[in-house]
Parts: sequence; C-alpha cells; structure tokens
Amino acid sequence: MFNEALANERCRWPQWRDKLRTPQEAAALIKDGMTVGMSGFTRAGEAKEVPRALAERAGNEPLSITLMTGASLGNDLDRMLTEANALSRRMPFQVDATLRRAINDGSVMFMDQHLSETVELLRNRQLANMDVAVIEACAITEDGYIVPTTSVGNSASYAILADKVIIELNLDSPAALEGMHDIYIPQMRPTRTPIPVVAADSRIGTPHIPIDSESIEAIVVTQGHDSPSTVLPPDADTRSIADHLISFFADEVRDGRLTPSLLPLQAGIGSMANAVMSGLAEGPFEHLSMYSEVLQDSTFDLLDSGKLDFASGCSITLSEDCGKRVWENLDHYRDRLVLRPQELSNHPGIVRRLGIISINTALEMDIYGNVNSTHVGGTKMMNGIGGSGDFARNAQLSVFVSKSLAKGGDISSIVPFVSHVDHTEHDVDVLVTEHGLADLRGLAPRERAVEVIEKCVAPIYRPALRDYFSEACQRGGHTPHCLEQALAWHIAMEKEGNMRRFQYVEKAQAIG
Amino acid sequence: MFNEALANERCRWPQWRDKLRTPQEAAALIKDGMTVGMSGFTRAGEAKEVPRALAERAGNEPLSITLMTGASLGNDLDRMLTEANALSRRMPFQVDATLRRAINDGSVMFMDQHLSETVELLRNRQLANMDVAVIEACAITEDGYIVPTTSVGNSASYAILADKVIIELNLDSPAALEGMHDIYIPQMRPTRTPIPVVAADSRIGTPHIPIDSESIEAIVVTQGHDSPSTVLPPDADTRSIADHLISFFADEVRDGRLTPSLLPLQAGIGSMANAVMSGLAEGPFEHLSMYSEVLQDSTFDLLDSGKLDFASGCSITLSEDCGKRVWENLDHYRDRLVLRPQELSNHPGIVRRLGIISINTALEMDIYGNVNSTHVGGTKMMNGIGGSGDFARNAQLSVFVSKSLAKGGDISSIVPFVSHVDHTEHDVDVLVTEHGLADLRGLAPRERAVEVIEKCVAPIYRPALRDYFSEACQRGGHTPHCLEQALAWHIAMEKEGNMRRFQYVEKAQAIG
Repeated sequence: MFNEALANERCRWPQWRDKLRTPQEAAALIKDGMTVGMSGFTRAGEAKEVPRALAERAGNEPLSITLMTGASLGNDLDRMLTEANALSRRMPFQVDATLRRAINDGSVMFMDQHLSETVELLRNRQLANMDVAVIEACAITEDGYIVPTTSVGNSASYAILADKVIIELNLDSPAALEGMHDIYIPQMRPTRTPIPVVAADSRIGTPHIPIDSESIEAIVVTQGHDSPSTVLPPDADTRSIADHLISFFADEVRDGRLTPSLLPLQAGIGSMANAVMSGLAEGPFEHLSMYSEVLQDSTFDLLDSGKLDFASGCSITLSEDCGKRVWENLDHYRDRLVLRPQELSNHPGIVRRLGIISINTALEMDIYGNVNSTHVGGTKMMNGIGGSGDFARNAQLSVFVSKSLAKGGDISSIVPFVSHVDHTEHDVDVLVTEHGLADLRGLAPRERAVEVIEKCVAPIYRPALRDYFSEACQRGGHTPHCLEQALAWHIAMEKEGNMRRFQYVEKAQAIG
Repeated sequence: MFNEALANERCRWPQWRDKLRTPQEAAALIKDGMTVGMSGFTRAGEAKEVPRALAERAGNEPLSITLMTGASLGNDLDRMLTEANALSRRMPFQVDATLRRAINDGSVMFMDQHLSETVELLRNRQLANMDVAVIEACAITEDGYIVPTTSVGNSASYAILADKVIIELNLDSPAALEGMHDIYIPQMRPTRTPIPVVAADSRIGTPHIPIDSESIEAIVVTQGHDSPSTVLPPDADTRSIADHLISFFADEVRDGRLTPSLLPLQAGIGSMANAVMSGLAEGPFEHLSMYSEVLQDSTFDLLDSGKLDFASGCSITLSEDCGKRVWENLDHYRDRLVLRPQELSNHPGIVRRLGIISINTALEMDIYGNVNSTHVGGTKMMNGIGGSGDFARNAQLSVFVSKSLAKGGDISSIVPFVSHVDHTEHDVDVLVTEHGLADLRGLAPRERAVEVIEKCVAPIYRPALRDYFSEACQRGGHTPHCLEQALAWHIAMEKEGNMRRFQYVEKAQAIG
C-alpha cells in the first residue's frame, strides 16, 4: 500500500498505527453541516485524499460543509467539492472557475477575507467552532506534532482549534521541508505580548505545529504533488511594468529614500508580480530580503542570482520546471527560507514594523488611485482580496500594477470610478502600467488624477478620462466626479461587452 | 506682559529668555512655500498666537504654506489661515467650514490621511522636509524638552524632525498636565523593534518631547484656552443607537465572547460616539479601559462612574462644562490618563495586539456594509477619514454607527452603493442605526445585505432597497448590483436635493 519504511521514518509518533485510516474512513468523520478547516495555500500543501473522498461521498448523500482553508486549493479540489454540492460556505480565498460560478450565482456563500484575519476571527469565536481540521504533513514528531509541507497557511491554528484532527502524511513531500517552518501562535487578546518578528529571517516559534495528540482522530498516508503554478513568462507589457518599477526603485536609492537593499519585499501571486520580482535581479540592488505571502519562481531566481539573501513566506508555489529545480535541491535553499502561518506572514503590525515594499496586482483602478482587486464589473467575484489589504495598508511603499488594457483593448483597466473598492486611495502610493508609473505620494486627489491619467492610462482611453476629469473639476469637490457618468464605463461593458465607446482613436494618435 | 514668576516656573530651560519672541517675530521665521508642522488635535493643544500672526501677515504679503497638524485646529485658525490665502496644502484632517469650501473648490490641496501614518511618511522622506514646527507647551524642561498641553498628536515627531522649532508656552494650560504624556518615537525601519505597548496603561516613553535644544528658534509666551467641543446631549435616536449597541455587548458577554471588562474601547469623535460611550455606564460592565484617539466628555463620565479604570488617547477635547470639571481637578484624573503620539494611539499593530472594540460614525453606508466616512455625494470632503481606518481595520470588533436618516428624512444614510469608500466590507463587523443592529460577522455579501436592510434601514426607504437587492440578485454576482441604478440615489440628491423618490410611504406604513 505504501512504503512502510518511509512512513516509519516520517511518522515518529508511537501511536500512529492505531490512527491509520483510509481516506474514506477519515472523511467519514466529517458530517453534514460541519465546519472543516483544511491546509492549503495558493495550491500548495493542501490535504489531497480526504477532500477527494469527501467529494465522492457528497455525490451520494446530502453533505454540505463550511470549508476554511489558507487560500486556494490545488488538484481541482474546489471544483470537485463544488460539483458534488459539498460546499455551503467557503472562506477566505479561492481561484477555481467552477467554485467561482457557484459563488457568483449565490449557491455557495463566500466570505472574502483579509488573509491575516481568518484565524483571529476563529480564535475569538466570531466564526463557528471548527469541527475537523485536515492537514497535510511531511512528518509527525515523537509527540504527535505536525510538520507541514509546502504551505503553513492557517494550518497551525486550525489544527490547534479544531475538535478533531485528520493528518494526511504525504510521503512524496520532501523530507528537507522539516525545519523550514516557524510556527508561532499569538496570545489571546487583550493580554497579547508583542510578536517578536523583527526581520525576514526572524525565527520565533517551533518547526512543528504543537497540538494535543488526543485530538488526532485519523492519519491517512498519501502520495502526490501540489499542482504546479501556471506563471507565464513576461510579455512586452509586464516587462515594461517591471522596467518602470525598477527604475523608480533605483531613483529612490539615488535620492536616499531607499538603500540598495531596498526594504523587505512582498509580491502578490501571478505572472505580473513574478515578472517584476525577476526584474530586480537586473537592478542596482543587493542583499534583498522578502517578507511575503507566497514564494514563487522569482524568489528562487533571485536567490540563485545572489541578489536575495532571505525569503519569508507562508507557502511555496512553483511552476513545474522551477519545482523540479527546487524540490530536488531543497537543502541548497532551506537556510534562506522560512514558512510561517499566514497570520504572521501577512500581519499588519509586522508589515508596518518592517516597512515593507508591497507589490500587488489590481484588477481595476480609478483616476484617484482606488483599487478593485476582486469584483469584475463590480459584482462578480474573481478570486478574493487575499493578502493585498494586509500588505498595502501598512507597507512603507504600496505599489499596484496592472496592464492598462484588458481583452485586447476592449477594457481600460483605469476607469473614472472603480466598480468595487478593495483598497482606498489612502493605501495606494504608486500605480504602474506598461505606459508608466504614477507616484501618488503626498498628492491630493486632483493631483493624483492628472498623474494617473497622463502616466498610466492607455493613450486610446486617455482623452475620455481627461474629459471626465475636466468636467468633474468644473462641478467641484475634493474628489471630483460626474456621478451620472461615473459607472458608465462598466455599464457599457455590461451592455455592449466592451468600453470601446470611450476610445478616441484619432485623439489618441495625436498623443502618440 | 505676562506673569514672570509663572513663566519662570513653567520654563526651566536656562537659555529661554534669549529665545523669547513676540508672535510676529516668531511667525517671521515662516516663509512663503515652507512646510510647517503645528500642534493641535481635534481643537486641543494647538499653537494659538503664531498661526494668528501668520494669518495677519498673509493678509498683507504673498505667503502660502503646507500646513501639517495632528488633526483639526481650534480657535478658528483654519478659517483665518484660509481667508488669508495662507494655505496651499493641508494635511491630514480638518473640520473648518471655510477651509472645507476651499478644499472642495480646489484652491487648497488637502491630503486626507490615516492619522497614524502622517509622521511615518515624513520620517521616510515621502513628504517634503519640515521647515518649522510650532508646538504649544505647558512647560519646557531643564534640557529644553517640550511638555505638550492637551494633545500630543503629531507634535513630538514634528518637533524632532523640523529644522526649526517655535514653542508657544501657554501659561493658562494646567500645570498638572506635566507627567500625563508618554512620548515614544518608533525606530527607523526596517530595523524597528516591537513597540512595547501591551495595555491602555502601558508607559513606554518619556513625559516630554526630547528635542535638540539647538533647534529652538523662538519661544512665545501665550495665554488662552482650547475651543470647547460642541458635543450635543443624546437625542432619541442616539439613545436608541447606544441601547442597541449596549445590549449587543451584553449578549457578547453572556455568550462568553467578551468579559464584563469588554476590550479596550475606541470611540470616534462627535455626539453619537459620545452618547454610546456614556451609555456604557448603565450596562453590566466593569473595569473598562479605553485605547482611543480623542478623550471626550464621556471618558470623564465613565471615570467618574467608576466603570472606567484607565484611558489612553492622544488628545482631550471637552465641552465647556466638562472642561471646567476636569481642568480644575486634573490631579483627580491624571493617574488614570495617558496622552500619546497619534502614531501610537492609532497604531494598527497595537490596535491589532490589544483587540480593540472600535466605534466610529459613518456618513453613509451601503447594503453590503461598505462605509463612506468622508465624501458628501461622493465628491465633497466633509472632514477626513481621521483615525477610523487605523482602528476599524485592526479592531477585534469594528462598529460603525449612524442615524438611518439625514436632513429630516430627505436622505437615507443607507444606500445601494456608497458614493465613496473609506472602509470596505472586510473592515466592518457591526452596523447600528436607531432601528437596530446588523451583526455582519461571518456573513457573505448577500447575507449582509438582508441583515443591513432589515435591521438598520429606515422603514420608509426599506422597500426600495429590498427591490434593488432583489433585482440585483436576479442578475447575479457575489456582490449583486444593478450598476445603472447604483448611484441613482446620489444623483437624485444632486438634482432634486433629496432622495424622496425612493421613499415608499404606503409600504413603509405596512412594515410598521
């Protein structure tokens, strides 16, 4: 069934054989209506077999749960669980197309949360009690403590707070993961002492999740891998975005506002943030550090280039190629990596303390620098706010990046008025598109609008936004708007499938 | 000219007489185009004579500055400076009607900021260098260090970072203020150590602002008082709001999610928050503490009632009556009070650490729980976001209160889509109006909308919001909207001066 010798090596808890269960037996602990926490963050380190068994069972009997994870799951688990109608509630993040449809048609209730906050809510009993936690482990210690795999996410608090714990011991996970985690649980409020992280490489906790072994109800031995990330190589636009940002950082160093080691870096997930981070290898920077959420391919490129000294995250999500390089040579990297609970990787107080440079992707931005990270057309959830709010609010420099156009130019990413606000203008210092970089620090809204329109908007949409802004200014206000036109761009999109009516081809040619 | 004996007592710095200047002489240090920082937070502890002399001078010569304060100024200073065209830029908060008009017509550039962030930006040189700081003091120590008066606000960092310092030594300020301040300046990032505040009564700094006495360019001896606050006694609606909230807290205690000492309390400024706080005296609570921004009348009512053990803030702003009681008996209160820099009173990391209960006033809220704190009709600045964002994002319980109606019912405070977002749904746990309390914790947007409409909206506007929500749900989406109607309530307000077209008088009568 599985490699006994390897399992014995990985599972050092003496009683483990008494708890050995099949995925189906373990999944049977989960009953209709329960709240279940699972490991998994950006398709890394999710429990794999128990949710699959659960989805199978839900195909045959009424079984619907509240599912809480770190962030998104890999291996199509959210799709399977949605198709089996196994999800009534889901938090705090997801990226699955099938689940997304169910969220948007109202059949799954989705709580989109700042990723640092979920376990605070659970700990304070502001969410329902957690019945079962299902956590992927690369090892179980002598005391029954869990060593997580490629993500920590919310696993530590879920395992500690849940009534029952199911452990998936994944024999395919690299043994070298052990020792890379740093598990620390903040004390209960209001008598919490300061969390002692003072740098990316601070180690303040234990390399395992300390749980009461009495709560271990099942151990399932599994094999299998995380889904590879689908990060795309940079295209001309993402390369331009990276270039603008890197020359901005170089100017900040020249002007003495940053040193060549910049500040601890955070980058959102996805191809764009990955391209920007990779671009740092070419700039006049050295001894960089990351205090981020997800460590992607670019983290390892930067480690390999010698530019990056240390990276802290709560999960590692790699492409197939990069994964091969990293997982087979983990010993080479592990002293320069730490994986923390997402409550700490994203902690507002630590982000503020370290003075992070935060780089996140916007779905849509407006002329005043408000950012929509989540809702297409103001209504349809894409993925979730993720950690962007944890970082952007408290960063020393909060950067949002986006291509200026979407759908081949049918959509301008910059609009008069965002159809949904995730990040207010207060929390956005710099906006970057392939056309340029708007440095909004210290500017009032009317000044921000000029900067955003002239630096970031695609030339084809620039005249319409200039006209909007100019008319709005005549009407007055600290943040001038023409309310009856404010959402017209989104309404056009809804009715006509595009924003082309706001393109000014001729005028745009005149701009160049 | 002034009481020499008293001045000698208050000013223990030996060289002070060399620096003695008239307000006009001191104001002459401020040149056209300079960035000037002044003490003052919610009309408490502002420098009084130098800005007045500056306004007079600006009436006769071109003189326009960037003015940075803690928050709002009293004694009509913002009005005088605006009327004299002395302000080109202003941050981070204001409440003056004349300045507000100038901000909204675009003649003064206003940077509306989270109040904890202003000095971080200054320290990191993300704002222009501060040329002059003008700080009100109740005493100057042997070393030339400043003892502030009724507010700390941003005074400490302004005095430390400015090239030149002007001190207004106010002989009318109570001597008993000395010892009540706790001045602590966080270290530069990224090597900042944890700020050691662990409770409302933590004292971590010095009772004075330690500055290089070489930077003291002028000392002006003044007399005069802060403007009294204009807090109104509770009316039927604010009393209902307080009652709903207090019974909610009592339920939380009963259910074991809070103890009878609740959690450190923060309350925004104004009559409504004041009414709510005063109401706590009647609930089943004891050993309360406050970790707030402004300490208002209600703080002293609660101290007097024996319910409140300790209050931490960055300013004390009192009505005329309460002021008499407090300032003449300050010795009676001072061991139970501390005044900190606003960077600490509002610090996101400390708010998160303590698990504060935050109560702030909304200008407008939408059916999903997004909150507008600043912009009337989406465009016109009222006062500023103030500290509400610092607290609401990181609080254990984030409460927003508002009357359900404004302008005698012409306006519904709850609309389909807020015309400006200061606080996203992620940061709003509880909404309260005189009609009821919506507990939004753990709810998805579609569930939040039902709760908000049924609990908080005025009956006369409830049917229209139900219809909007119902049609939006048919169209779908995680956060359903009918985009072409989303801002119709504000457009009606703009065109017709009211939202009456959305009132359903008959249906509302049926609701009761």
